[in-house]
Amino acid sequence: MPMFMDVHSGMKGLTAEQLRAEHAKDTAVEKTEGVHFHKAWADPKSGKVFCLAEGPNMEAVRRVHERAGHPADEIYEVPLSVE
Amino acid sequence: MPMFMDVHSGMKGLTAEQLRAEHAKDTAVEKTEGVHFHKAWADPKSGKVFCLAEGPNMEAVRRVHERAGHPADEIYEVPLSVE
Repeated sequence: MPMFMDVHSGMKGLTAEQLRAEHAKDTAVEKTEGVHFHKAWADPKSGKVFCLAEGPNMEAVRRVHERAGHPADEIYEVPLSVE
Repeated sequence: MPMFMDVHSGMKGLTAEQLRAEHAKDTAVEKTEGVHFHKAWADPKSGKVFCLAEGPNMEAVRRVHERAGHPADEIYEVPLSVE
């Protein structure tokens, strides 16, 4: 299943609780799109949030975030990874 | 230890082998800066690469990428995460 990294901007001042709440909105609807959000990292100072997801295609990932009320500013398919 | 997500742009056409080779350059020097690169994800189509690292501060992360020959375009401290 393809992997995606998406980026949200403008979330300055985001708290840990708010991040959990927003992430829960994604996981509440993701199954109907065949998507799974693995993890998200946030920088409350700059307002950037990075989400790692797998799903059938980019549009499905985009739709989950839209339906959750926080559309992503950028979405990239990331077929390569290394650790 | 603080976590950081950095972003490289302009790496269009990057291959899995090249990603591994570039990542190895980071891990070869990271210890001298007290940094550890956990993982990297790449989109060869857009040329974006996302790296997740932990380290004492942003400057240390910046220096590892610079010494490895591939300076990051953006670096964010990501104190919040959720999964």
